[in-house]
Amino acid sequence: MFKTIKNSKKSKARIGTLSTEHGKIKTPIFMPPATRGYLKSLDSIDINNTNSQIVLVNTYHMLLKPGDKYIKKYGGIHSFMNYTKPILSDSGGFQIFSLQKMVKITEDGALFKSPIDGTEYFITPEKSIQIQHNLGVDIVMAFDECMSDNYTKEQAIISTQRTYRWLDRCIKEHKKLNKKNNTKKLFFGIVQGGLFKDLRIEGLKIVASLDVDGIAIGGETIGFNMKKTKEILDYLYPHFPKNKPIYTMGVGGCPQDMIDVSIRGVDMFDCVAPARIARHGSLFVGKLNTKTFEINSKYKDNKLRISNKEFINDKKPIEKNCTCFVCRNYSRAYLRHLFMSKDPLYSRLATFHNISYCQQTLNELKEKIKNE
Amino acid sequence: MFKTIKNSKKSKARIGTLSTEHGKIKTPIFMPPATRGYLKSLDSIDINNTNSQIVLVNTYHMLLKPGDKYIKKYGGIHSFMNYTKPILSDSGGFQIFSLQKMVKITEDGALFKSPIDGTEYFITPEKSIQIQHNLGVDIVMAFDECMSDNYTKEQAIISTQRTYRWLDRCIKEHKKLNKKNNTKKLFFGIVQGGLFKDLRIEGLKIVASLDVDGIAIGGETIGFNMKKTKEILDYLYPHFPKNKPIYTMGVGGCPQDMIDVSIRGVDMFDCVAPARIARHGSLFVGKLNTKTFEINSKYKDNKLRISNKEFINDKKPIEKNCTCFVCRNYSRAYLRHLFMSKDPLYSRLATFHNISYCQQTLNELKEKIKNE
Repeated sequence: MFKTIKNSKKSKARIGTLSTEHGKIKTPIFMPPATRGYLKSLDSIDINNTNSQIVLVNTYHMLLKPGDKYIKKYGGIHSFMNYTKPILSDSGGFQIFSLQKMVKITEDGALFKSPIDGTEYFITPEKSIQIQHNLGVDIVMAFDECMSDNYTKEQAIISTQRTYRWLDRCIKEHKKLNKKNNTKKLFFGIVQGGLFKDLRIEGLKIVASLDVDGIAIGGETIGFNMKKTKEILDYLYPHFPKNKPIYTMGVGGCPQDMIDVSIRGVDMFDCVAPARIARHGSLFVGKLNTKTFEINSKYKDNKLRISNKEFINDKKPIEKNCTCFVCRNYSRAYLRHLFMSKDPLYSRLATFHNISYCQQTLNELKEKIKNE
Repeated sequence: MFKTIKNSKKSKARIGTLSTEHGKIKTPIFMPPATRGYLKSLDSIDINNTNSQIVLVNTYHMLLKPGDKYIKKYGGIHSFMNYTKPILSDSGGFQIFSLQKMVKITEDGALFKSPIDGTEYFITPEKSIQIQHNLGVDIVMAFDECMSDNYTKEQAIISTQRTYRWLDRCIKEHKKLNKKNNTKKLFFGIVQGGLFKDLRIEGLKIVASLDVDGIAIGGETIGFNMKKTKEILDYLYPHFPKNKPIYTMGVGGCPQDMIDVSIRGVDMFDCVAPARIARHGSLFVGKLNTKTFEINSKYKDNKLRISNKEFINDKKPIEKNCTCFVCRNYSRAYLRHLFMSKDPLYSRLATFHNISYCQQTLNELKEKIKNE
């Protein structure tokens, strides 16, 4: 399913392709979230035009509204969204465990109440896999406990051991459904272990030894604390199986984070931040230096705050090196006017730019590796 | 400036072209509102893709935010919006007079306070024309009192007489500015008179006798009460000068209204309703019968309420005869999901369809006239 096209000579980055039922994706790739079957304010044609090759839907959100059975009856998530490229679903673990006091975990699964209408749901590993197959996604994720960094070693051991027991059940259910429905959906296992190096390495070895199509690195730290994320990747790298894609879940708050994990051997990543901060007025700028792997610009954190008064009369595009349709057509001044007027049009243009800019930066990295 | 291409043999409708500084528009045409320099949730590329040929901006709203002087300094409204087709501005009269108790009218103009920050504005006919020239629109409208239907005959006479005195001042200022700036902006006069037939006919004769490029029919009734609007058009029609475009201000709550005024000799119209009701969940459906000039569908008022449960599993497009990108790509079920989820993407797709559907219906009418 996964092929390495070229390994970088300057970093641990690589160009690869992952084949799915809805076509190939070229890695490293950022997977923007289409949480409930839409990427807030972008339609499927827009998503394609950002050069995104795959989107992520959230099992938890889809389960609550409009429901996995509804989507199955409709003919699957691709048909519903009119999106023809690959779709990955998370397992719902992250959202369910973030309900904290509203969730009760047993060996069998997680019991929680819908914050929408109070309906009780009991999600087992098997149930999560069934939901994802009902949605009809291309890549199914294991149902795991997204572990808090506050866990003691003892708690962490209990949690990860249960997560890997659940992993076995997920794989079994996944294979059963692929066979029953005559589908070839991919399945990724998830490595947990928090900040415990031994648990992380041990977990990676367990997941890599099983029949999985890809390996995800999950947990509270990943993406949230980039310093620790990089440390974890650095010590996990020697243990990465070379023939499987590596996916850091929740990484990609900004293009720099995406580059930072790519040069540490990661192939796939997702994050809500580029779209969310776009809506709130932060737009990505800067230029990737393919020698130092650093993105530089005169703006703090390579983000332009569009509400800033300095942009009132600024006729320049968001980022002069960006080729997205927003930068080709609209000025900072006009975008600021739309932002201050709170028009939905702002959300669309801002989201389009931020996501497009992430993919462009990754394409520059791929181009660099290709020509090394 | 205005040429009749063909008169219908079956109605008073006609195909015409109006030439402006930013190109020609083919009439009859619906002009969607881009109130503050944007058509809520649609960008300029979207607007073009709806087959709209001209948009309307609101002088009152632009004056308050971001300001006509700001737009002039920026290089004009076309450059600001990155919209290359013609733009018409209303004069601000409608909005200013709807402030009612917050506005004080004298012979010289109207004094009012900004509802945004309380700033006092005194708008004279000259000032309104200056603002519109500062915006850099193609078609400038006269500053008038948008007359209430509740006026007594005496009040109506006072109001219309002042409106036509103001019209002379508007024309003078408009010519002065066109000369000074070496521009060829068009100017439309506005006929008022409420429900008084004699005042309406007399008003039309006054406006038609002056140096105007087009004639607008304004007032509270127009568009709001279609029965009375049609009555007014029917008795005004014999007095319409044949070489000038006729514009009913505020007509176009639905495609049927647009057809109804087109077949009564009207060439241009604008209304916020198609975009507004789209956002609130009403989508246009139906098929124009070019013999009866009636639009028919199985839905009440030819509007589909997308929130209705009957659309939950409906895989059909909004309107099967519609060729817009929304109808080609998304189902009623998906649009309902977006509407229920309150995502800005819904606003865009819904607005796009409603406006596109209006232009399509008018194109069908034009096609019919062409082939008569």
